[in-house]
Amino acid sequence: MGIESPLFQLFGQSPIQPLTKHMHLTLDCVSVLPAFFAAAQSGDWKKATQVRSEIEQHKRDADVLKKDIRTHMPNRLLMPVARSDLLELLIAQSRLAGSAKRISGLVLGREMHIPDSIYPLSNDFLAMGIQAAEQATVAIDELDNLLETGFSGKELKTVEALLAKLDDLEEQSDQLQISLRRSLKGLEANLNPVDVMFMYQVITGIGQLADFAQRVGHRLQILMAR
Amino acid sequence: MGIESPLFQLFGQSPIQPLTKHMHLTLDCVSVLPAFFAAAQSGDWKKATQVRSEIEQHKRDADVLKKDIRTHMPNRLLMPVARSDLLELLIAQSRLAGSAKRISGLVLGREMHIPDSIYPLSNDFLAMGIQAAEQATVAIDELDNLLETGFSGKELKTVEALLAKLDDLEEQSDQLQISLRRSLKGLEANLNPVDVMFMYQVITGIGQLADFAQRVGHRLQILMAR
Amino acid sequence: MGIESPLFQLFGQSPIQPLTKHMHLTLDCVSVLPAFFAAAQSGDWKKATQVRSEIEQHKRDADVLKKDIRTHMPNRLLMPVARSDLLELLIAQSRLAGSAKRISGLVLGREMHIPDSIYPLSNDFLAMGIQAAEQATVAIDELDNLLETGFSGKELKTVEALLAKLDDLEEQSDQLQISLRRSLKGLEANLNPVDVMFMYQVITGIGQLADFAQRVGHRLQILMAR
Repeated sequence: MGIESPLFQLFGQSPIQPLTKHMHLTLDCVSVLPAFFAAAQSGDWKKATQVRSEIEQHKRDADVLKKDIRTHMPNRLLMPVARSDLLELLIAQSRLAGSAKRISGLVLGREMHIPDSIYPLSNDFLAMGIQAAEQATVAIDELDNLLETGFSGKELKTVEALLAKLDDLEEQSDQLQISLRRSLKGLEANLNPVDVMFMYQVITGIGQLADFAQRVGHRLQILMAR
Repeated sequence: MGIESPLFQLFGQSPIQPLTKHMHLTLDCVSVLPAFFAAAQSGDWKKATQVRSEIEQHKRDADVLKKDIRTHMPNRLLMPVARSDLLELLIAQSRLAGSAKRISGLVLGREMHIPDSIYPLSNDFLAMGIQAAEQATVAIDELDNLLETGFSGKELKTVEALLAKLDDLEEQSDQLQISLRRSLKGLEANLNPVDVMFMYQVITGIGQLADFAQRVGHRLQILMAR
Repeated sequence: MGIESPLFQLFGQSPIQPLTKHMHLTLDCVSVLPAFFAAAQSGDWKKATQVRSEIEQHKRDADVLKKDIRTHMPNRLLMPVARSDLLELLIAQSRLAGSAKRISGLVLGREMHIPDSIYPLSNDFLAMGIQAAEQATVAIDELDNLLETGFSGKELKTVEALLAKLDDLEEQSDQLQISLRRSLKGLEANLNPVDVMFMYQVITGIGQLADFAQRVGHRLQILMAR
């Protein structure tokens, strides 16, 4: 964008600030997943239910803010271009939060137990998705700061670098998903087919964490290209 | 919006009228589902095929109108903001109609028989989705009327109340889906795994009725926030 | 559009040219699928892996161009309406390329072997999807040419005719999918349930080729309606 601070301040603060807040609520949903999976894997369904309630609560908070932003975005003043770019970013963030809720719902609903032999790999895969969500949050925080304080083209490079790393994380997440699916395939003979299919659905869901985090990053790039 | 009738009439009738018509065609798709499931459950596939043809016909009518609206929306005059908000509403409605077609296609294609022990619960779940679609239609009708006759902020509260009830219906639909999935899980041991997986797909599809109806409601809220 | 060449040339070449290039990269992804399936079916996984690398490379090229178009689309000059219509066309094209990558990933990841008795039908179904993608590419090429050279309303009819044929192809693809699913259902008893479920996922993916190609066509129609 290259908006220098004095000029931008004609009309006030960073327009992405409310979206930054929404991204942090999104990250709250995602960050609780390791605690959830740990409880589920140890068969402590009471604890798992309780942790999932937290995810649902964070999701509910994010949705309230999403509705707020959507209905109160000052469309009398905002360019249609800027407005639709901001709404698309919001949708990408909301999908990321939705993934966390959906994954945990699948596991809890079936009281799913991931085979112990692939649990460590599954944990690495989940950690990679969470790292991608954190990286996307760092990028949006950084851009928000720059918009507040003013910046030169050089400083935008920092955000670009953060987003390039996010693309790497998504690549690595992809590779881990391929390994995990191959490992699960080797175990299929000893598992109930319906349970297997739902495990694949959970794997797909975890893979979407990095995928949707990357989409948040793409949306930031489009905003910065204006 | 708060557009008083005399002013709005400078440029004529309610801009959502063509979309209201599309919503009624959408509701036509959804409303036939109970008859379809009844035929399917009794194994009367000739009747089920015939009822599904009706759904397909309603869907085709909705699609013709959708294409009409999309290509003839007077973009020379409409604000890009208004235009994209109207198109998003149209997409939400179209997804709702698509769900009805997809669910019935899955059942008919496999001549699926839902286990008798969960059929009543499944029926309640379907009824809840249809009720949500009806509620969304009532809301859009009401807003359309208000736009025609002019309204104060107070009258918009009626639409807000209708939409709040729609959110409740979606919540209830969610709870019913959880129960239904739990019940089906208890029957898995005695069922063919592939049949089971497709039953879950049908359940997902029925759950989307309330979900997409709620999305129609969210789109109306965004339009009203202008 | 009916833009006569001399007037349009005030501001230069066809605005859809970069998207035409992206569509050709998309078609490159799709066109390699028969070679991939042939290798997979004969159990030559080395060859299949190699062909899939080509698909991934074409997809990567398309994504680089997509990012380029998105970030460099001259939003200072383009109407928000035109800009969002062009971006929606780009998304539709990108989904088509994504389908090709996803289908081949599923087959390769499980070293899936389609039952020989349904392989010919499956091949016809795939050919139909590819034909739809080719048809969409012909339509966008034609529109691009018309925008370069100027055209009367009459010449737009050519593009309309191409798009009408695309709708037919999607219908035929739908019918083939119904037959193929019915045939696979007849074989389920002798197959591993998990393998079966993934075959259905591949069938769904192949069906999306015609579906997304048609969506590209719908987007062209919206552009032409301006």
